[in-house]
Amino acid sequence: MSKGRVCLAYSGGLDTSTILKWLINDGYTVVCFLANVGQEEDWEEVEKKALMLGAERMVIRDLQAQFVNEIVFRAVQCNAIYEDRYLLGTSLARPIIAREQVRVAQEFNCDSLSHGCTGKGNDQVRFELAWLALAPSMKIIAPWRIEAFISKFKGRADLLEYARVNDIPVSSTPKAPWSMDENLVHCSYEAGILEDPDHEPPKHLWKMTVDPLDAPDKPYHLTIHFTKGVPTKVVTEDGIEATDPVELFKLLNRIGHDNGVGRVDIVENRFIGLKSRGCYDSPGLTILRLAHVDLEGLVLDSKVRELRDQFCTISWSRQLYNGMYFSPERELVENSIIFSQQNVDGVVRMVVYKGNAYTIGRSSETSNLYSEEDASMDSLDTFSPMDTSGFIAIQAIRLKKYGESKIAQGTPLTES
Amino acid sequence: MSKGRVCLAYSGGLDTSTILKWLINDGYTVVCFLANVGQEEDWEEVEKKALMLGAERMVIRDLQAQFVNEIVFRAVQCNAIYEDRYLLGTSLARPIIAREQVRVAQEFNCDSLSHGCTGKGNDQVRFELAWLALAPSMKIIAPWRIEAFISKFKGRADLLEYARVNDIPVSSTPKAPWSMDENLVHCSYEAGILEDPDHEPPKHLWKMTVDPLDAPDKPYHLTIHFTKGVPTKVVTEDGIEATDPVELFKLLNRIGHDNGVGRVDIVENRFIGLKSRGCYDSPGLTILRLAHVDLEGLVLDSKVRELRDQFCTISWSRQLYNGMYFSPERELVENSIIFSQQNVDGVVRMVVYKGNAYTIGRSSETSNLYSEEDASMDSLDTFSPMDTSGFIAIQAIRLKKYGESKIAQGTPLTES
Amino acid sequence: MSKGRVCLAYSGGLDTSTILKWLINDGYTVVCFLANVGQEEDWEEVEKKALMLGAERMVIRDLQAQFVNEIVFRAVQCNAIYEDRYLLGTSLARPIIAREQVRVAQEFNCDSLSHGCTGKGNDQVRFELAWLALAPSMKIIAPWRIEAFISKFKGRADLLEYARVNDIPVSSTPKAPWSMDENLVHCSYEAGILEDPDHEPPKHLWKMTVDPLDAPDKPYHLTIHFTKGVPTKVVTEDGIEATDPVELFKLLNRIGHDNGVGRVDIVENRFIGLKSRGCYDSPGLTILRLAHVDLEGLVLDSKVRELRDQFCTISWSRQLYNGMYFSPERELVENSIIFSQQNVDGVVRMVVYKGNAYTIGRSSETSNLYSEEDASMDSLDTFSPMDTSGFIAIQAIRLKKYGESKIAQGTPLTES
Amino acid sequence: MSKGRVCLAYSGGLDTSTILKWLINDGYTVVCFLANVGQEEDWEEVEKKALMLGAERMVIRDLQAQFVNEIVFRAVQCNAIYEDRYLLGTSLARPIIAREQVRVAQEFNCDSLSHGCTGKGNDQVRFELAWLALAPSMKIIAPWRIEAFISKFKGRADLLEYARVNDIPVSSTPKAPWSMDENLVHCSYEAGILEDPDHEPPKHLWKMTVDPLDAPDKPYHLTIHFTKGVPTKVVTEDGIEATDPVELFKLLNRIGHDNGVGRVDIVENRFIGLKSRGCYDSPGLTILRLAHVDLEGLVLDSKVRELRDQFCTISWSRQLYNGMYFSPERELVENSIIFSQQNVDGVVRMVVYKGNAYTIGRSSETSNLYSEEDASMDSLDTFSPMDTSGFIAIQAIRLKKYGESKIAQGTPLTES
Repeated sequence: MSKGRVCLAYSGGLDTSTILKWLINDGYTVVCFLANVGQEEDWEEVEKKALMLGAERMVIRDLQAQFVNEIVFRAVQCNAIYEDRYLLGTSLARPIIAREQVRVAQEFNCDSLSHGCTGKGNDQVRFELAWLALAPSMKIIAPWRIEAFISKFKGRADLLEYARVNDIPVSSTPKAPWSMDENLVHCSYEAGILEDPDHEPPKHLWKMTVDPLDAPDKPYHLTIHFTKGVPTKVVTEDGIEATDPVELFKLLNRIGHDNGVGRVDIVENRFIGLKSRGCYDSPGLTILRLAHVDLEGLVLDSKVRELRDQFCTISWSRQLYNGMYFSPERELVENSIIFSQQNVDGVVRMVVYKGNAYTIGRSSETSNLYSEEDASMDSLDTFSPMDTSGFIAIQAIRLKKYGESKIAQGTPLTES
Repeated sequence: MSKGRVCLAYSGGLDTSTILKWLINDGYTVVCFLANVGQEEDWEEVEKKALMLGAERMVIRDLQAQFVNEIVFRAVQCNAIYEDRYLLGTSLARPIIAREQVRVAQEFNCDSLSHGCTGKGNDQVRFELAWLALAPSMKIIAPWRIEAFISKFKGRADLLEYARVNDIPVSSTPKAPWSMDENLVHCSYEAGILEDPDHEPPKHLWKMTVDPLDAPDKPYHLTIHFTKGVPTKVVTEDGIEATDPVELFKLLNRIGHDNGVGRVDIVENRFIGLKSRGCYDSPGLTILRLAHVDLEGLVLDSKVRELRDQFCTISWSRQLYNGMYFSPERELVENSIIFSQQNVDGVVRMVVYKGNAYTIGRSSETSNLYSEEDASMDSLDTFSPMDTSGFIAIQAIRLKKYGESKIAQGTPLTES
Repeated sequence: MSKGRVCLAYSGGLDTSTILKWLINDGYTVVCFLANVGQEEDWEEVEKKALMLGAERMVIRDLQAQFVNEIVFRAVQCNAIYEDRYLLGTSLARPIIAREQVRVAQEFNCDSLSHGCTGKGNDQVRFELAWLALAPSMKIIAPWRIEAFISKFKGRADLLEYARVNDIPVSSTPKAPWSMDENLVHCSYEAGILEDPDHEPPKHLWKMTVDPLDAPDKPYHLTIHFTKGVPTKVVTEDGIEATDPVELFKLLNRIGHDNGVGRVDIVENRFIGLKSRGCYDSPGLTILRLAHVDLEGLVLDSKVRELRDQFCTISWSRQLYNGMYFSPERELVENSIIFSQQNVDGVVRMVVYKGNAYTIGRSSETSNLYSEEDASMDSLDTFSPMDTSGFIAIQAIRLKKYGESKIAQGTPLTES
Repeated sequence: MSKGRVCLAYSGGLDTSTILKWLINDGYTVVCFLANVGQEEDWEEVEKKALMLGAERMVIRDLQAQFVNEIVFRAVQCNAIYEDRYLLGTSLARPIIAREQVRVAQEFNCDSLSHGCTGKGNDQVRFELAWLALAPSMKIIAPWRIEAFISKFKGRADLLEYARVNDIPVSSTPKAPWSMDENLVHCSYEAGILEDPDHEPPKHLWKMTVDPLDAPDKPYHLTIHFTKGVPTKVVTEDGIEATDPVELFKLLNRIGHDNGVGRVDIVENRFIGLKSRGCYDSPGLTILRLAHVDLEGLVLDSKVRELRDQFCTISWSRQLYNGMYFSPERELVENSIIFSQQNVDGVVRMVVYKGNAYTIGRSSETSNLYSEEDASMDSLDTFSPMDTSGFIAIQAIRLKKYGESKIAQGTPLTES
């Protein structure tokens, strides 16, 4: 008799194949689930392998449109970034995958959810916090935190031996000396040789970007249109145009890829208190973020921007990184993000070249905040410079007292 | 009889030469002051011109070391940035110039301070707020906000006519169709043709950086050493080494210049409520900021970083931009910045290439926060993965309730 | 011929009567406006006086319901408070008054707006910023900042003399040695003898609260019901019940008044950079704020509360204080406030006694966040204490490194 | 042979007596530790009991001065408060106790630390995070999270039975139907009948304050002197004076006690994600916090206050609540707190009466920020009201554009 039905996040790799077999051997019925969030994959091969290993069923779902519309474009709207550098590629995909896995589990009467994430990383936290919010009564099986599993599989040799005994096919391609996670937004590279933070990533590591040295020798121009902070059209110098969200994003990825745009190499702080080194290439999102930040300069009120930067951008980014997507605080912040973007309409003209993306012009017909007349140093038609005297005098009231008190204390600011 | 002695910020250009003459004609004795903050200048020519026009004295002071040590390196320590893009080049120089001008004014018994800033910009605010804090009892003469002056000089033609009548020498070089401000940190370009935010800056506009297209075809390597968040040594691939703060900064400027690093083109929010378009090239500071951010990833505690980012970086940057350097709140924030940098010691290895700067490795002997052992996905010696189960369970307590309440309300998160 | 038609905020007092006459004498046609925001007033007398002095028309509007529904209850929803102490009574009324005055001005074809606020206070800023947002093209006449007016009226004696000459009736009641501003929410007392911050407010100063010493010797019980953070019903121990917003608020005011609840005496920071001393009694709002804060403890998610406190409460309070109600940033923040209150439903039981208000119980049927089962120290049915071990272990990872680094530096925390 | 030497936080109560005996029975040598942080206790009796039960030693340390000087006065300096209501009484004492327990453990060669905190509360987290930072290599024994212990002691009956069998003396006083924690700052009451948040705390629950109904019928006056934000002297209306920190605090406690000041009854969010109901009376700290907040109004620069409120107050309070005292982020924040208090010198005059504390006057000779001259509505000697016109005009630039854009969109603000 089955111990129950488990919905397992299955990638076809050695780790999750081992878990699949281990669960079956342990008496579970297993429904395998794989999300298509834009990664490169031989989908048929994965399905064949899962069924061959004894999965009751292999469910593959294309979540690319959800991913782009519900999460990636939200990240664009708030200029999401973690610790000044990381565009959150992996974090962004997790909520969409987790939600679909729960839906699949419910559809096929599973009572448990399982994944193959390691016990030291962020992804286990992201999947499980999402699952516990989405399906508070479902059980979770996390083999890499189960004593029996860990003590059986102490290293790769144990996995290979188990594969041999259990007829799990093993890829003949040698494993890269780092681990990767790929989706529409980025590819991440960590662990292995990258654990030395002073070890430069090898030239052939990067998957979603060419080496800037190998990028074309001439700049490439493109134009990005935004409506309410969301990109709605991309037009390139050679006449390619995309408006469908997924197609638009893939076009930007291709442009970014070809010109080597969007590489990051950092040491970051994981939610669970460890530091880790990660390399990421996020070509399309890097271009989009830059374009969006630039357009906001033109159309967003300064105080709205200030509040949004300090409140929404920082909070939403951290929430996503920490796996708190399905949370009341993310709902609260996202409501503000959307509200802030009402007038973020316009067009940004950009150039990419050898690893860089530059804005070279921006315009908007919606916002009245920028005015050449007002901005002009030569025109005083809409501005009385005498007003500034009063403005400065009022701002200086407390500063003068500050200066006076320093003088009184014998430490005048002129001697600071 | 003199109306009093004024200390005028004098650059030798048409505007401040006109002001100098106008003040003299109006009955003032004028002490001219010019700060050397790293800009290109024919210092002797300026002095000669000031004295020829009737200045009582021309005082030129080299403030480069103060500028770098007291302000620029502080900006590095807190990763200062305004509105996500601008490294604050002009803002950083203002306090140092303002303070020295007050010192000079006091030294030569002036009772007033004067500048040639326009009435719509940030710089008038920065100079005057600084002066009012530094010397609360000194008077300020801001001609571009004085009715008599403005109505006399309605445009460049009026200035040229006044120059002709008053024997003010006028440069025969045609004026660039934009205005510039240069110092050790950057050169800024604004106004004129740049007032159309959709007008691409012309190729020959940039002064401190070559066009990335014209930069060398091969990457250039360098290493930056930090102590307490301050750069203390730069070593390049061809063996150049700098340790003196000003020399070190100039070396980075040269490397950035040659490789086209550090151009920014934005629309920003001025303190006085207008938006304006500015282009800036800040080669050295761009490299330094990136290196410092990267090192902090390795050595800074995550919560310290979080507080510093949200409190110090944003506050200090805004204070500098708004001209609030001589203020109790800047003192408060700077105290925290310095405190936060106690362990920011280490070495960052970098590459610059065609407009970009990349980190390729970092190391520190001071901090114990990064540990390959801890970070390694393969090692469990210092980490029990079972702890993570408890961590997740506790974090999930309120998320499960959130999920349950959504189910109870008939809007389960799985259908979100 | 008239210089134009001005809509003047007219109170019937000496200042605004003088301004009314002065405007008329200066050639303006004047429409007088007075808002009823709950203050005590002889409305007919004010109208008679305005017309007698030559106003074209006296418009009085009852704005109490707007005031309570649009602003006061929003303040309750976000626990608004300025500098830890002030419930913002005056600030809350200003936007409602300013908006109606603009509507009246438009209705009666005025081209200017005028008020009698002094040139050193917050209210001039609040009115004018609101007016400039509401009607960007209307002119503003602020006599207390007009040279001709100020130099004519240097003190109260000049006003009295002008009144004598111009037949302006002057109240025979001697003026209190402080100034007051009253509305539904509070009465404020400032200036005059209160300018000495060490001078205790006299016993008879307070208008909306009895002296706690004179309050009843027994506690008084009441119950406040909230829906989405807004009070919807108050029931008292002697069976009085109110549900209409204005009636409900007035009932709480009466209870607070009788029991001496809601007095504050502070030195605050005005927007224009001066400090000033103000005394305020806000009986009803003090009770409501306390009840609402208490209910949120029961029903609001902890992270939502944290973000709301740091973002919405502080920002909204400051925006209102500074007169930035009609601003895009207030819109942004208010949108979040409302969103945050979705589940703030429940009942709070309170007691008032001799100057104090206490909560003695609270309940909610909407929120599942508080659970006696979960909270109970005796029950482990819904909680595994072992989870806490993992939680602590993960939280301690970086703290242990911190402790170790202190030991390595020779400054162990045990010796701190 | 001993399993090792454990330093146990021992209170003499049933729980920790059981743990003491259980540890001994399990083979440990136990050093008992009890901190005197101002609670009422029969110290000799506790010592006698510990030794009688088999403790190797009973160490009692008076930490009151450390507690007041290092923590309580820091809380005063930053106006510490958790979730708008709770003055953090228990949280404040924990770091001092934890540090001394580690010192004692090191002194007597213990290799483990133990406490009797339950597995659902905050205190286990606070003690253990502190211990792990203070002594990263020491082991922790938390019986209420050890399976063997929990399954043996399922309820009070099991504890009593174990006491009977092991000759543990049990107090004949019936246990209160709630639990308490007392120190110099407050007494807390939670659990038991208080777990129903709608159950009013019984009249005789409160230990550190009389019922306001039973407080004297006349107000009591006192004066508090501060230097750098720290109270340095209290003088009462009947001539009592205290300057020693502990004596001063105890005097305020007594005054607060007698007049029923400082009761709070809330539902709060524990660090571990549960909500719990707590009642607290903190007489002295309530008075001190109010006095300090009031003095800051007089002497603190407005921008410094704003940053301090949003950064230091909120962060430090949360750090203490969550047990993160020994952390780099607390160090960072505390450094700012101290820096911010440089000029917080002055005297606050207060009255307490029937549950309330009021400020009635404040003065300072250090700060020049408040000026009667400046504040006065009647004086224009130090202030030109015309400056305000410019100030308003500049502030309104973006608000006018906002209003204009609303009109252009067909939703004018006048119709909002």
